[in-house]
Amino acid sequence: MSVERLVVIGGDAGGLSAAAQARRLRPADDLDIVVLEQGPEASYSACGIPYWVGGLVSDRDQLIARTPSQFAAQDIDVRTGTRAKKIDLAGGRVTTGTGETLGYDHLLVATGGKPVRPPVPGLDADGVHGVHRLADGADIRAAITAGAKRAVVLGGGYIGLEMAEVLQLRGLEVTVVLADPLPMGQLDADMGGRVCAAMCEMGIDVQTEQPVREIEVGPDGAARAVRTDTASYDADLVVLGLGMGPETTLARAAGLQLGTTGAIDVAPTQRSRSHPEVFAAGDCAQTFHRITGEAIHVALGTHANKQGRVAGSVIGGRPARFAGVLGTAMTKVGDLEVARTGLCTTQAEQGGYDFRTELIESSTRAGYYPGAAPIAVKLITERGSGLLLGAQVVGGPGSGKRIDVLATAIWAGMTAEQLAGSDLSYAPPFSPTYDPVIVAARVASRIEQR
Amino acid sequence: MSVERLVVIGGDAGGLSAAAQARRLRPADDLDIVVLEQGPEASYSACGIPYWVGGLVSDRDQLIARTPSQFAAQDIDVRTGTRAKKIDLAGGRVTTGTGETLGYDHLLVATGGKPVRPPVPGLDADGVHGVHRLADGADIRAAITAGAKRAVVLGGGYIGLEMAEVLQLRGLEVTVVLADPLPMGQLDADMGGRVCAAMCEMGIDVQTEQPVREIEVGPDGAARAVRTDTASYDADLVVLGLGMGPETTLARAAGLQLGTTGAIDVAPTQRSRSHPEVFAAGDCAQTFHRITGEAIHVALGTHANKQGRVAGSVIGGRPARFAGVLGTAMTKVGDLEVARTGLCTTQAEQGGYDFRTELIESSTRAGYYPGAAPIAVKLITERGSGLLLGAQVVGGPGSGKRIDVLATAIWAGMTAEQLAGSDLSYAPPFSPTYDPVIVAARVASRIEQR
Repeated sequence: MSVERLVVIGGDAGGLSAAAQARRLRPADDLDIVVLEQGPEASYSACGIPYWVGGLVSDRDQLIARTPSQFAAQDIDVRTGTRAKKIDLAGGRVTTGTGETLGYDHLLVATGGKPVRPPVPGLDADGVHGVHRLADGADIRAAITAGAKRAVVLGGGYIGLEMAEVLQLRGLEVTVVLADPLPMGQLDADMGGRVCAAMCEMGIDVQTEQPVREIEVGPDGAARAVRTDTASYDADLVVLGLGMGPETTLARAAGLQLGTTGAIDVAPTQRSRSHPEVFAAGDCAQTFHRITGEAIHVALGTHANKQGRVAGSVIGGRPARFAGVLGTAMTKVGDLEVARTGLCTTQAEQGGYDFRTELIESSTRAGYYPGAAPIAVKLITERGSGLLLGAQVVGGPGSGKRIDVLATAIWAGMTAEQLAGSDLSYAPPFSPTYDPVIVAARVASRIEQR
Repeated sequence: MSVERLVVIGGDAGGLSAAAQARRLRPADDLDIVVLEQGPEASYSACGIPYWVGGLVSDRDQLIARTPSQFAAQDIDVRTGTRAKKIDLAGGRVTTGTGETLGYDHLLVATGGKPVRPPVPGLDADGVHGVHRLADGADIRAAITAGAKRAVVLGGGYIGLEMAEVLQLRGLEVTVVLADPLPMGQLDADMGGRVCAAMCEMGIDVQTEQPVREIEVGPDGAARAVRTDTASYDADLVVLGLGMGPETTLARAAGLQLGTTGAIDVAPTQRSRSHPEVFAAGDCAQTFHRITGEAIHVALGTHANKQGRVAGSVIGGRPARFAGVLGTAMTKVGDLEVARTGLCTTQAEQGGYDFRTELIESSTRAGYYPGAAPIAVKLITERGSGLLLGAQVVGGPGSGKRIDVLATAIWAGMTAEQLAGSDLSYAPPFSPTYDPVIVAARVASRIEQR
């Protein structure tokens, strides 16, 4: 029996999930698996970096899920510090930075994402940090230890919010500078406004509608301020919280077709549409929205894991398809939990849906139970059918994970009325008699009945 | 226009939801609404009584959602301290304890539940308390204030667990005496065992497989011990935590047909099956299981509210149907959260299902995030189809409400594989990359694929 080889480029969520799944289905005497990772670690949690910076996680190694030796025990050859320099699609081989050539029978491109960088002068200065590699976290920690007092976070998405929170936790004065009118652009304005208010109440300085024009650099070559059309904000530390784009340099050079989002265009099997013998998964790959079917790029570890698993299954001989994304996302800033799924108002408008929105306010627990906190739930439903299209949740502790109920209902194609009738749990320490999700669904379905 | 009259017997969740919904649909010049409540308060939270006893809720009035004067503002005449003594179905009238006769065009029986009482001597002694009326809570609080040191809780269901927790919180030594081999009989043994272990670790004395034989009464007429075949447990205070049965005395005397569960037999419109001109809702009414279609009695405020709402809608002229229950339930004991939905193993066996079970262990948050706690998720799925039939969750803070995702998936008729592919939220403070619900669904669907 001739042994085939799977080469995986990128040793994080997407690549390693694929490797593990392929190995489950095909033993080492049938499939050789080599994972090339340019960085010093494989399998780390980029999402955990803010909490390491914040000191909530004390040890960097806690962010590393598995080491190369653990993978070796599964006969998966993970080579860290090994850059893939070139893919030769016609020849079926990958060349590494040291000139080694690896032939492959199956190739998975899982090169991940890269922080979005605004095209402004000074961005390459010392003191400007992404939140991507563990080295970024180490650099930011070192800057704090060295005495940084003022941080400017560019962008108010998930990473921006999380970094603002933890930098404040570490004692820095934090300014968040946004091009948008509100943080959390994936929320409607009435929900994003709640996030903005909570940030301001925490003492985070939020400066909106100010695209960054320049990173001012001092004579020492380090960033010293962020300039917008309105003002200049002093900074010992600048953090890029503008989101993650796809890292496609290698794929593009090889001739793999990119999609409209700029990420690698793949079918639901994770096969490249231009080169079906090549797979792509994770932050470098384009995916599709479950509701609209449209191409979308979402950089998130859960999707990377699932897409990698699909690729690994297909390579392993078992049919599998990625089922799409709803854009479910969640974070917190201070005690405020923020979550969303499906279409927001802007997306529903762009998609040409005839829809209505309902926003309700309730309580995370029975009103009389200690720790009960306000929660707002907003639903977007299709007019007429009552189908759930999207949901947003903002509120105190215990609010955010309620988005999963709404994501499941949308995934299943439920109407607001069906959700309103469903049997969700009730106990005073955990919800009012009617869970806020039910209250929202009921209001949305009641209005549909008129 | 002649004004019709709706008489509601019972002024709590079921009755008042019906009254409020009927009023929304029919103004006061079209429908007169009178609610008869034998107790001193309407609209109180029985579920909150344990937390009032435990001192987590300081003021009894916090448990009262709305007062009669608030209902009066909606033209709903709520008469507390007014007992309905007799229903004359043929004559269409209700006689009160004071002999007043009220004719009705529409009648809703919402007489609620009553604590299950084991048929043993001594149960009527002083010091034996249900957890039903606010007066019960006041009595238990008074007993603690008067110096009660040892409490025996009969039964290990939701009320039993909650009372054990709060009595211990108040400094009492607590023994829970069960006829079953484990607390939480609605869970499978492997999950109930986790609850039992946590209770023991908290210092609650759990005595299993010991049906109570007698409440030993002292010369002062007060309970002093609970006797089983094995031992006698000293008690200054005995609490009935054996669940709630339907209160049907009045309905039975009037000739309304009861179902197999002993509760009033109603159609999904909440109309009595024997007398469709009469409605029943809440703890006094029988309902049906969403999966099996079988008759079931579940005493819970959420169902009471929804059933009352259905009855109120129908009375108000808008068609409505109650959609059934999954038996979703949740509670906590100490930091351990406990929840279940759908069929447990015993129910699946009794229903004749061909099923499999999977139990997974995971973490409530990313493993590295502070406060991450163990969580166990058990799924029951139909063999072949992979349809989700039931789920149980036991774990640390943040575990329990995850049952709502599973309840929604079961409600929607999803398979484990569909749930495994769904887009649930991920952020390190709230879940591992794969939420424990997804992990469980994935394991269940993976096994189905073999």
